[in-house]
Amino acid sequence: MQGHPAIIVGYVDAPARSAVAAEQVRGAAHSGVLVSAVRGVQLHTLREVQDLRGFLCAAEFDLDLPFVPKRCFWVYAVPNQQIRGEHAHRQCAQFLVAVKGQLRVVTDDGTQREEFWLDRPNLGLYLPPMTWGIQYGYSEDAVLMVLASDPYDPQDYIRQYDEFLSLTRPQEAA
Amino acid sequence: MQGHPAIIVGYVDAPARSAVAAEQVRGAAHSGVLVSAVRGVQLHTLREVQDLRGFLCAAEFDLDLPFVPKRCFWVYAVPNQQIRGEHAHRQCAQFLVAVKGQLRVVTDDGTQREEFWLDRPNLGLYLPPMTWGIQYGYSEDAVLMVLASDPYDPQDYIRQYDEFLSLTRPQEAA
Repeated sequence: MQGHPAIIVGYVDAPARSAVAAEQVRGAAHSGVLVSAVRGVQLHTLREVQDLRGFLCAAEFDLDLPFVPKRCFWVYAVPNQQIRGEHAHRQCAQFLVAVKGQLRVVTDDGTQREEFWLDRPNLGLYLPPMTWGIQYGYSEDAVLMVLASDPYDPQDYIRQYDEFLSLTRPQEAA
Repeated sequence: MQGHPAIIVGYVDAPARSAVAAEQVRGAAHSGVLVSAVRGVQLHTLREVQDLRGFLCAAEFDLDLPFVPKRCFWVYAVPNQQIRGEHAHRQCAQFLVAVKGQLRVVTDDGTQREEFWLDRPNLGLYLPPMTWGIQYGYSEDAVLMVLASDPYDPQDYIRQYDEFLSLTRPQEAA
């Protein structure tokens, strides 16, 4: 681990900088981008429009996202004790929004690790390629919407953390 | 109204073909497209993947949608008695998914009218340009996600039904 800030081993109960980032955004402007300590990860606060008929939150792909998505998926009815993710993508970037309910997302670049609490429908978490991601602690009503930069490709997944580390720390693998 | 099938006047309590379309899809394959009587409107049943860790539903923009979206928005915390929509778009096409909860959508091409009940997160309703749309009956927990073909443009809205009719029935306007 020499030369690298420690990463916290043990995914779920890692204290990390739990929810600190989200708190920082709350204290900031109504919209904006918070840069994470994890390489490339960004927490976006999106515009939210409220009137008597409810709330609306929007993302213009060319303006509001770090990439133009080619795919969208939504995850729901996740039992609270379940953990999802636990992989990285070689090429695909993702933008995660808990459009309903809340969940926690651990992000990890192989060196730094940071946890985010997605608990408002106008928070969007950008995960660049080669980010290890874990989602857990889904509330019963949670719906996670993900905008993805690429079509689905099983070859794009890195599912072994050791392999992920060897790719993100080539100098140690040598 | 001569020469046109009757449209049902009075938006919300119109019996229309309420929820019939959705029932038809339920009885059909696990995925597929139902063509509405309303010009161009389609009810899509999207692929849904279930495992022990919950459900996932996906849309590949090039494959699963009638257009490539440039914008996404989500609507939430809509009081049940409220009505949203009540407009048409000149150019923008939309794909509506109730990713949580349920709501009703009235679609109208100026001649035909049909109502859909979006009550499952794998149902997607395609509204082509020049479709008058009304959403109502949001359940308390409902989240409506909309994929849109164009960036937001207030000039694209037609908010007066009379104007919409004059544009969709030019022969009567003459």
